[in-house]
Amino acid sequence: MSKAKPSLPKGTRDFGPEVSAKRNYIIDVIKRNFKRYGFSQLETPSMENLSTLTGKYGEEGDQLLFKILNSGDFLSKTNEEDYRTGSKSITPKISEKGLRYDLTVPFARYVVMHQNDIAFPFKRFQIQPVWRADRPQKGRYREFYQCDADIIGSRSNWNEVELALLIQDVFKDLRLEDVVIKVNHREILFALAGYVGLNDNKVGFCAELDKLDKVGADTVMGKLTEMGGDQNKIQEVMELIGSPVTDIDSLENVVEKVKTIDPENQGISEASNFFKSVKRTARSNVPFEIDLSLARGLSYYTGMIFEVKPTSVQMGSICGGGRYDDLTGIFGLPDISGVGISFGLDRIYDVLEELNLFHSDISQPLQVLVVHQAGDSGEQNFEHSQQLVTELRTQEIDSELYPDPVKIQKQFKYADKIKVPYVIVVGDEERESKTYSLKNMVSGEQQKLPLNELIKSLQG
Amino acid sequence: MSKAKPSLPKGTRDFGPEVSAKRNYIIDVIKRNFKRYGFSQLETPSMENLSTLTGKYGEEGDQLLFKILNSGDFLSKTNEEDYRTGSKSITPKISEKGLRYDLTVPFARYVVMHQNDIAFPFKRFQIQPVWRADRPQKGRYREFYQCDADIIGSRSNWNEVELALLIQDVFKDLRLEDVVIKVNHREILFALAGYVGLNDNKVGFCAELDKLDKVGADTVMGKLTEMGGDQNKIQEVMELIGSPVTDIDSLENVVEKVKTIDPENQGISEASNFFKSVKRTARSNVPFEIDLSLARGLSYYTGMIFEVKPTSVQMGSICGGGRYDDLTGIFGLPDISGVGISFGLDRIYDVLEELNLFHSDISQPLQVLVVHQAGDSGEQNFEHSQQLVTELRTQEIDSELYPDPVKIQKQFKYADKIKVPYVIVVGDEERESKTYSLKNMVSGEQQKLPLNELIKSLQG
Repeated sequence: MSKAKPSLPKGTRDFGPEVSAKRNYIIDVIKRNFKRYGFSQLETPSMENLSTLTGKYGEEGDQLLFKILNSGDFLSKTNEEDYRTGSKSITPKISEKGLRYDLTVPFARYVVMHQNDIAFPFKRFQIQPVWRADRPQKGRYREFYQCDADIIGSRSNWNEVELALLIQDVFKDLRLEDVVIKVNHREILFALAGYVGLNDNKVGFCAELDKLDKVGADTVMGKLTEMGGDQNKIQEVMELIGSPVTDIDSLENVVEKVKTIDPENQGISEASNFFKSVKRTARSNVPFEIDLSLARGLSYYTGMIFEVKPTSVQMGSICGGGRYDDLTGIFGLPDISGVGISFGLDRIYDVLEELNLFHSDISQPLQVLVVHQAGDSGEQNFEHSQQLVTELRTQEIDSELYPDPVKIQKQFKYADKIKVPYVIVVGDEERESKTYSLKNMVSGEQQKLPLNELIKSLQG
Repeated sequence: MSKAKPSLPKGTRDFGPEVSAKRNYIIDVIKRNFKRYGFSQLETPSMENLSTLTGKYGEEGDQLLFKILNSGDFLSKTNEEDYRTGSKSITPKISEKGLRYDLTVPFARYVVMHQNDIAFPFKRFQIQPVWRADRPQKGRYREFYQCDADIIGSRSNWNEVELALLIQDVFKDLRLEDVVIKVNHREILFALAGYVGLNDNKVGFCAELDKLDKVGADTVMGKLTEMGGDQNKIQEVMELIGSPVTDIDSLENVVEKVKTIDPENQGISEASNFFKSVKRTARSNVPFEIDLSLARGLSYYTGMIFEVKPTSVQMGSICGGGRYDDLTGIFGLPDISGVGISFGLDRIYDVLEELNLFHSDISQPLQVLVVHQAGDSGEQNFEHSQQLVTELRTQEIDSELYPDPVKIQKQFKYADKIKVPYVIVVGDEERESKTYSLKNMVSGEQQKLPLNELIKSLQG
């Protein structure tokens, strides 16, 4: 047994009481809204067979999978030739399972395995950690939570609207209204690709566009020209792309412009209907913006795409998603269309922290600490405190009793350290009169109250 | 990309909507009570360094650890000699991390790493999955949840009482009152070991006793005799052990008997005080029983030990715990005493299922499905439904709108399949009169209600 100073694996974190409470607050808001919109929970195991995971995230993704060593004598399925050929070729023989990389592939696997029991449209949410063997850096972890909601088995564009309203509700409930919900449509991007003469490299066009924020317009234009696009038309498209519009009426103008390029474009009519529906049903003012430069790296999106960015903090997207046509084709079940979104818990946490949007009572969940006077009647005071704390708990008041017979100053020191908002003192006087001293630890105010008033005061 | 039929790794499970809802119900009850008693949440990462995990669970435990293959070219730190020596010797060179095996060792690691920031006594709870490469069998999984609460840094025996009361509250709230909370004290067991002449093999004595349920009294007596115990005294002790007592007053008799063996035994006075305190403060009738055969396999317990067993279902323990003297000595921080309990989510689930103790509304979380009549005014009905569902959600009524314009019969078929308790129909008539048909899907009853009454009816 080593007694070395213990440490955490790189890129992983402990969440102590205060951080846990804040994370739970975010999760509860997201979960509350997932349920409000009729999504049901799914949980999948942390481990999946590597045959399920491999090949779904591109070559880079495969390298970022955490692989689990087979149990027992794992080398028994290998020979020296495998060893000499190297890590890559020996891996499949010593590892059959991996930790999930996202929640989408396990969801697709679940749908295929339960296709006969599931009632479509299937609205599922899933809030679980995922693991990636990425190089750890600020804001990027090897274990982090995704909060996903998907509606599959329905092509109705009302689903996109519902997810947009849900996004609005989540950020409204988090009081994080300094965000913008950027939307775009892959068909519009594909039309623009065709307009500049890159019809046969639409995905490449989107990939270049996706870098606009990082590399700037000139570099993107250069790249698109290199790829064979028409320089004047690229210029024209970049101007259109460069001017995001936040007002719903002026969005119609963008739509009109794109219509001149491709009048039959499905993306245009879908985006236009999307805004009409949102305008009709929105429950909050969290703003939308059509951003034609929004491309979303993932190749499987085929329709509307979303991304949420905070406007008053420097931070990447904190939520994203879109419509896909073929969730489960990779597992042999074709034509399952759907639309999904994913909230990034860790980034939302960082934004709320930076903007000071956590209420102080989120991180101070414990309501009351009961402290008791030592001395000649210490034992009696302690027993009296035990009755009191039991009564408080019966009244649904979360409470703690200092468990050791130490000086009351030491108990108050503990109260300060755990930042408990209220302390009740039980001394000889309080025990005999059954009237308790309730101290508000924030204001310093102190009151003497009989039990029923004490409880009322704490419940109020 | 393989299109093979996807499957789950052995010993792991998906939890669909219904099972997830039931599991959450149990977790919520446990969590609610952890908070009621003043415990704060801790979350630790799924992965720990193998140096943290190895050697803490005995040799068998080490073999059950899931180990994670190092990223990249993991063989680069090995040579052919390592390969030839075999799996066991190559493991430390290709794997540095593992999945946590329980919540206790990560908790101990956390305490040591944060010893200067933690306010002692530290009351933490932790509800997270753990992983063991056990042979999967009925009721035994490779990924399962533990729900732990520990109070550390306090030797006060009030902590044992609080945990016992907490256990009572959890099972009362789950309406699972057909359980017995068995308690014992390791010091009493050690005294009995001394009495039969096995003072130098107390732990062996406990280990044999732990098998009583499985192998029967005769086998245990034989073993203890073989180990060098006095046959007559063993007989005497086994008679004492064989008669568990459920009535608090008769527990005193057991205490008296044990006192004749070892009058100064600390276990006896602690157990006796425990029952007095519980009698004074218990908020429910979930029964206690001193069971002198209760030994708890784990070697680190030093004081009171607990185990909860259901009485009307054949099932092992569904909760267990006890007092330990040295949580963090393994990491170089000695003398941290504490007491903890752990609820087994999966077994509690199985017991509740078998006794039919899940309310029907736990597994039917979605309250309302809005369906809409197709036909000439289908579009208008659908838009009207969109407004309606938005209003329901504003009123905190969880609701879903069927997203596609299909025949109403098909929408009702979906309602049946997802077992939604209420359906609201929006047809031409309803849209024009703003009076909606609300159908109770359980009773079949149907009412026509204006919006405000509809909402009241659903909120009631």
